[in-house]
Amino acid sequence: MKKTEKRSDCPISRTLDILGDKWTLLILRDILFRGFHFYTEFLGSDEGIATNILSDRLKMLEEKNILVSKTYEKMKRKKEYRITPIGISLVPMVLEMLIWGLEFDDRTYALPSMVERYNTDRDNLISEVIKSLKEANDLDFC
Amino acid sequence: MKKTEKRSDCPISRTLDILGDKWTLLILRDILFRGFHFYTEFLGSDEGIATNILSDRLKMLEEKNILVSKTYEKMKRKKEYRITPIGISLVPMVLEMLIWGLEFDDRTYALPSMVERYNTDRDNLISEVIKSLKEANDLDFC
Repeated sequence: MKKTEKRSDCPISRTLDILGDKWTLLILRDILFRGFHFYTEFLGSDEGIATNILSDRLKMLEEKNILVSKTYEKMKRKKEYRITPIGISLVPMVLEMLIWGLEFDDRTYALPSMVERYNTDRDNLISEVIKSLKEANDLDFC
Repeated sequence: MKKTEKRSDCPISRTLDILGDKWTLLILRDILFRGFHFYTEFLGSDEGIATNILSDRLKMLEEKNILVSKTYEKMKRKKEYRITPIGISLVPMVLEMLIWGLEFDDRTYALPSMVERYNTDRDNLISEVIKSLKEANDLDFC
C-alpha cells in the first residue's frame, strides 16, 4: 500500500489511511456481506485481485485488528479469516457504498427492495447484518 | 486512476470503481464537510495531494456527475467546484468514515459529542448537513 505523504489528525483521513483503497474494501465486502473466510475465496472474487495485493491487504487488516486469522480446524494448513468487532463496525459504511451503487450507478442491477428496506428500516437492517456476522463467528473472536 | 482489472456487477464494486481511492474521498470530505470550492483550497489540505492527482480526480468527479464546475463570478479565470445531488447523497458514507475514525483509530482526537449525536440522532444530523450543502449551492446546481 502506498505511504501517505503527510499524516493528518482528521478522523476521515485516518480512516482512509487504512481503508482508502478499493481492494481493501472489496475484501471487507467479501467477509461482511458474502461470508468469505479463506484466501482462495477472496482470490476468486469477480474483480480478480492479484495475489500480492490480497496478501498485503489481509496482513494490514490483521495488523489493524479488523480481521483475525487462525488455523482452520478442518484443514490445518489453511488459515481462516474472521471479522473482529472493529471490523463489524464497518457494516454501516460498506452498506452506504452498496446503497449509493444501487441508486446512482446505472450500470448496476436495481434491487429496489433493498433500497426500500434501507430507506424505511435502516437501523434494523444493520442490526440484522451485524447479528448474523456475530453468530457466524466463533465466540473467541467476538 | 488505475484501471480496474475486471468489471463487476456488484454495486459495492461499482461504487469503488469511482470512489475506491483515498484522494477522491478526501476531495469529497473537503467539499462536503469543509465547504471548499476551489482547486487551491483542495491543494492546501493537510494531506498534501499532488497537483496531477488533484486534477485527475476533479475531472473524474465531474465526469461522474458528482461535482460540477463553473467560472467563478468574482474572478473569471478561476473555476468553482460545487457538489451535485448525486454527490450530496454521499454524505452518509463519508459520515460513516468520520464516525469509524473517531471510534476506532486512537490516533485521532475524540469528539464524543459528535459520536453521541450520531448514535442518538443520525437521521437529523445527516439532514442538517445536506440542508446546509443545498443552501450553500446556487439554485442552478441543486
